[in-house]
Amino acid sequence: MKPTPNTQHKTGPLLAFGAHPDDVEFGCGGVVARETHGGRPAHLVICSRGDSGTRGTPAQRVAEGKKSAALLGASVEFIQLDGDAKLEVRAAHTMKLAGIIRRVRPAIVLAPTLVENQHPDHARLGQLVRDACRLARYGGMKELRRAPPWAVEQLMYYAVTPEAEPVNVTPVFIDVSAPEILAAWTAAMEAHGSQAATRNYVELQLVRARLRGLRAGIGHAMALFPNDPLVLESLAQAGRGARQF
Amino acid sequence: MKPTPNTQHKTGPLLAFGAHPDDVEFGCGGVVARETHGGRPAHLVICSRGDSGTRGTPAQRVAEGKKSAALLGASVEFIQLDGDAKLEVRAAHTMKLAGIIRRVRPAIVLAPTLVENQHPDHARLGQLVRDACRLARYGGMKELRRAPPWAVEQLMYYAVTPEAEPVNVTPVFIDVSAPEILAAWTAAMEAHGSQAATRNYVELQLVRARLRGLRAGIGHAMALFPNDPLVLESLAQAGRGARQF
Amino acid sequence: MKPTPNTQHKTGPLLAFGAHPDDVEFGCGGVVARETHGGRPAHLVICSRGDSGTRGTPAQRVAEGKKSAALLGASVEFIQLDGDAKLEVRAAHTMKLAGIIRRVRPAIVLAPTLVENQHPDHARLGQLVRDACRLARYGGMKELRRAPPWAVEQLMYYAVTPEAEPVNVTPVFIDVSAPEILAAWTAAMEAHGSQAATRNYVELQLVRARLRGLRAGIGHAMALFPNDPLVLESLAQAGRGARQF
Amino acid sequence: MKPTPNTQHKTGPLLAFGAHPDDVEFGCGGVVARETHGGRPAHLVICSRGDSGTRGTPAQRVAEGKKSAALLGASVEFIQLDGDAKLEVRAAHTMKLAGIIRRVRPAIVLAPTLVENQHPDHARLGQLVRDACRLARYGGMKELRRAPPWAVEQLMYYAVTPEAEPVNVTPVFIDVSAPEILAAWTAAMEAHGSQAATRNYVELQLVRARLRGLRAGIGHAMALFPNDPLVLESLAQAGRGARQF
Amino acid sequence: MKPTPNTQHKTGPLLAFGAHPDDVEFGCGGVVARETHGGRPAHLVICSRGDSGTRGTPAQRVAEGKKSAALLGASVEFIQLDGDAKLEVRAAHTMKLAGIIRRVRPAIVLAPTLVENQHPDHARLGQLVRDACRLARYGGMKELRRAPPWAVEQLMYYAVTPEAEPVNVTPVFIDVSAPEILAAWTAAMEAHGSQAATRNYVELQLVRARLRGLRAGIGHAMALFPNDPLVLESLAQAGRGARQF
Amino acid sequence: MKPTPNTQHKTGPLLAFGAHPDDVEFGCGGVVARETHGGRPAHLVICSRGDSGTRGTPAQRVAEGKKSAALLGASVEFIQLDGDAKLEVRAAHTMKLAGIIRRVRPAIVLAPTLVENQHPDHARLGQLVRDACRLARYGGMKELRRAPPWAVEQLMYYAVTPEAEPVNVTPVFIDVSAPEILAAWTAAMEAHGSQAATRNYVELQLVRARLRGLRAGIGHAMALFPNDPLVLESLAQAGRGARQF
Repeated sequence: MKPTPNTQHKTGPLLAFGAHPDDVEFGCGGVVARETHGGRPAHLVICSRGDSGTRGTPAQRVAEGKKSAALLGASVEFIQLDGDAKLEVRAAHTMKLAGIIRRVRPAIVLAPTLVENQHPDHARLGQLVRDACRLARYGGMKELRRAPPWAVEQLMYYAVTPEAEPVNVTPVFIDVSAPEILAAWTAAMEAHGSQAATRNYVELQLVRARLRGLRAGIGHAMALFPNDPLVLESLAQAGRGARQF
Repeated sequence: MKPTPNTQHKTGPLLAFGAHPDDVEFGCGGVVARETHGGRPAHLVICSRGDSGTRGTPAQRVAEGKKSAALLGASVEFIQLDGDAKLEVRAAHTMKLAGIIRRVRPAIVLAPTLVENQHPDHARLGQLVRDACRLARYGGMKELRRAPPWAVEQLMYYAVTPEAEPVNVTPVFIDVSAPEILAAWTAAMEAHGSQAATRNYVELQLVRARLRGLRAGIGHAMALFPNDPLVLESLAQAGRGARQF
Repeated sequence: MKPTPNTQHKTGPLLAFGAHPDDVEFGCGGVVARETHGGRPAHLVICSRGDSGTRGTPAQRVAEGKKSAALLGASVEFIQLDGDAKLEVRAAHTMKLAGIIRRVRPAIVLAPTLVENQHPDHARLGQLVRDACRLARYGGMKELRRAPPWAVEQLMYYAVTPEAEPVNVTPVFIDVSAPEILAAWTAAMEAHGSQAATRNYVELQLVRARLRGLRAGIGHAMALFPNDPLVLESLAQAGRGARQF
Repeated sequence: MKPTPNTQHKTGPLLAFGAHPDDVEFGCGGVVARETHGGRPAHLVICSRGDSGTRGTPAQRVAEGKKSAALLGASVEFIQLDGDAKLEVRAAHTMKLAGIIRRVRPAIVLAPTLVENQHPDHARLGQLVRDACRLARYGGMKELRRAPPWAVEQLMYYAVTPEAEPVNVTPVFIDVSAPEILAAWTAAMEAHGSQAATRNYVELQLVRARLRGLRAGIGHAMALFPNDPLVLESLAQAGRGARQF
Repeated sequence: MKPTPNTQHKTGPLLAFGAHPDDVEFGCGGVVARETHGGRPAHLVICSRGDSGTRGTPAQRVAEGKKSAALLGASVEFIQLDGDAKLEVRAAHTMKLAGIIRRVRPAIVLAPTLVENQHPDHARLGQLVRDACRLARYGGMKELRRAPPWAVEQLMYYAVTPEAEPVNVTPVFIDVSAPEILAAWTAAMEAHGSQAATRNYVELQLVRARLRGLRAGIGHAMALFPNDPLVLESLAQAGRGARQF
Repeated sequence: MKPTPNTQHKTGPLLAFGAHPDDVEFGCGGVVARETHGGRPAHLVICSRGDSGTRGTPAQRVAEGKKSAALLGASVEFIQLDGDAKLEVRAAHTMKLAGIIRRVRPAIVLAPTLVENQHPDHARLGQLVRDACRLARYGGMKELRRAPPWAVEQLMYYAVTPEAEPVNVTPVFIDVSAPEILAAWTAAMEAHGSQAATRNYVELQLVRARLRGLRAGIGHAMALFPNDPLVLESLAQAGRGARQF
């Protein structure tokens, strides 16, 4: 019988995947800021340069992504899969993402939710990341032999828009109401000037977080949707339930 | 804006409700043992004397309940609602349970799940407890004015049998594999000698916990089903995800 | 074969039930205002005087309820069922509500959603109203013979809080962003001075409506959850789908 | 803040996609007839020539499809994706369908439901169409630059068979019981002589529509499943609820 | 370890509960006829005399119920709970039904589904019967001591209308297309002359059964919704899956 | 009108698909043993050689698979799709599997469940097999013309791990507690020496089956999840419901 799980998840790196240059910021930027402010390293992997969006050139968008990652206290890299709005679910992509997971060795991975009624790249990236987390720990994968197997401790999903929130998963709410967290997150969203200017996107996200905060009796909160039940050493770890009204 | 939630839930009392003298032991006894071994006070409220069961007199069953509570390190009281197998959802019962919540002032409340396809008393008690947690914090309840309002931090449900596990709630798994916890829990179940002897009940529960433990890569684990999203200060609190195969 | 349904629903009265003096205002006040501004008569039936709330005397709360109904352009009556926080699902209550439906002869009925994880009176009132809509049209009910049977055209539910929104029903969004509607609704909520002052309730509702408005590409919108599929004469009636991002 | 949505959906074209030559007719033919009889232009896009079916040559089936579209008052075109029973979810297909949407500029799009337990081409075409509706309105898609972006007002799904009806979406029922509509629809189904003769298909569809009509208290009705909540200007638009028994 | 379950369910009595004099006939009459034609005894328990319906006096309806039971080859008794349209979920009712179960000692019990959006008596009777099946086998119930405990082998639900069909339970389809079965069932429905004449009810049920038959490739079929997984000795027992198109 | 379905399913071959050399054994090995002991022929099709697993060479794993199939009394073949951990949903694979179905002409097909949160090959193989069962019976498929169309009588899914069990399908439980069945199944699992040694896999499966057996009041049972409603000639076929506590 194995010993009780270790506590690597308490300080190990956070790895967040985004389909487009601003998805992480809009979908879970407050959480990333909360973790980096608490001392956890964070790395973002952006899987397109957003070249199909209505506004912003690829170069602009990459520059915005780099600026905003810095504001969140995270490192960032851009990779190319099938291109913006063209992502397909392919084993080769899973393998590529699994290789990144082995390299970064994260405790926690964040990815877009699997809800299909959203930008098609989002749900597909979510699927690829979920599968990549499994493949990363299988010992016999020839394609991945450059780095040793790695088992992440948590895979959680973020919803870029309200429609993308799964209804049959109980979320966890992360408190992002500390002023410095809220400021960093807002600045990171606003760094995507080509997107944010025209689309009420920043307001949408702040309103969502305020609504969750009001439910929980705090300032602002963001929801994450765990892929698996949480294993807790005791109820002391379970936190408080969100209900105020 | 309110400050971040306090940490009363880390050490405050646990209050577990059971419809019959052995429900808490069979449904979440390992969790109660885990918490009392960690220093948290626990109190059990049993809402019938089990007088409709196939075996055991009410007096026997109360004696068994007291013995088993002691083995779990918990105090216990027996109350009378409508009688075993006769529980109805009535406002007067809710009020009675809310009064107990105000008196005990628990951080965490446990109750049977709301899944209806189980012993009818179980789901109904779950409903009564859920509603009682709300009423306990409303300031204007005349019936409750003997004690000041009290807001519990967490309400979680336990499933007495596998059929009683809700399918659209993400559970948390509590590690109960430490030898002293497992021993206390098993002894508490076996203390219900009138029930356990004939019904494979102890095996059922140990097998369930072992199956969850195998999933999570530990020895034994018990599932609890939160009534509300968990509010976490950061991901360091979120623990590990349960997935081993 | 019957002719195509008539259009009574286009102008017939709206009847909204609330469990407490402020539920209608907070849960669907914008919709009521929208309808009365369009010329539809509206009547509110409040099923307690809110005497168990933390703040406000029953007399105060009734006065607030009357003032706020007037601000919404609706008439209002207060009835007594089991009292605030004590509502039970009883046939006699259903009968009472069915009698009101026969008297008011509404085209559209609004009631709190059936989601159980909210104030217990809300979901129970929702159940009673749903059943009352059926009983109102059964010809043989002796208890109801004072008035002829009446079949409502639509039964829709409103969610007082976000947790009360059902997840497996597709809502309709009602546009409440016209300035006069928004002003009337806000004033009606603020009329409940005993409640609103301390609990962020007005902000919660405006934030919810703004979030829905942002999704739909308009200012503010409120969701209603239909009890039955909508029968449309053609797709011209179906409106626009809500999706902006 | 944008003005209230315009009413383009009231008269703009209907665009219906089918995986095989008879899917639109059997799955939503009555609705197409209802709309064209009301003066709305309708265009059908058929994505295979049905060459894997048990009966009928591709040439026969195309001829049948043309005849039946004419009976519905719609124009029709046949495109080739991967071939009958071989459809895959590929970005290139999405792009192709998005190009058609930009060209046709429909108010309303109909596609097969996303329920997977049906002919594999159906659910996959549903996914492709859903994604195509999004891509059609993104400004930066190089592949689509031949035509300006276009945002459809409604995307709704039709179920070719009862098993294909999604269970967690509230449908809208469209009244198709006017004699001329019912006759046009029946004739359109019967135009697929190679299919209908042997498979009780026409009866299946008429029975389904009669069952829905009986529920709604009218003659015959067909269900459509909206992709998004309906945004209504007021409840006058919401129609009547379907419930007769 | 117990031996493999016996085969009492193959020939033991069928006990069907109905809330009103015609519910069994309309909701599962074809199944009752199928079983009695195969030699299984069947007994119907009707829990009101239908005195709140729009048409038919209680005496008429009881007479119709007796005639129709005879046509189905079943015995019938009428009991009184709270009266038509007034049924409440009370422990005393459960006890009464459990007493009947102990007296009749059925292998199979049929009851209306638990779906709440139907006539309120239907879902409530379903709950009472489900609970009664449990209580019937508990040895310690003083109220039931007149007869020894009895464990039914199967509890299945029938849906009086399409809206009453649960969506998350896999039904079994019973073939009722043999001419003598179909004739007996139709005659039994038509025996409720006070109801059937005005309400398209007979057509509704035949259309539903024909739709299921078309799906399954047979004439007519009725769906039953099992309360628990079926325990099969081997796959030879599992029958055929329903899918024809 | 067709005659009542024949009874080919009672003795016709069982065809079970597995993604990896040990999936059938761990996921439904007891059922395969039960059927072969009852005289039904069984054939296994394994779609990779398990070359990405942490332990065991492809040659070893194929040898283990052959040995274990023999222990189950089944024949076995290995086919190559995209390779272990690289399976994609492609029409060409569906066609290949449909060709096997036409060749084997099974009454019953078993495949991994469609739940996505498991090894990615499992859910994808489940999808491919489901689609292949349809294509196998379409008469016009040129790619399949080597063998005549074939319609399977039942498609059921097995869950390799507890997480893979679908929550909205009612399973059937197959009794596998006869000593010779249990022994054959255990031996077949243990034949996968390269996998079983290190991973508690055998215990996991036996514990799952014992838990189901305890629920059903028998020794051990395995769950299968039907793709379609079961069509039964009468309730005599429906077996017993699983509920013991």
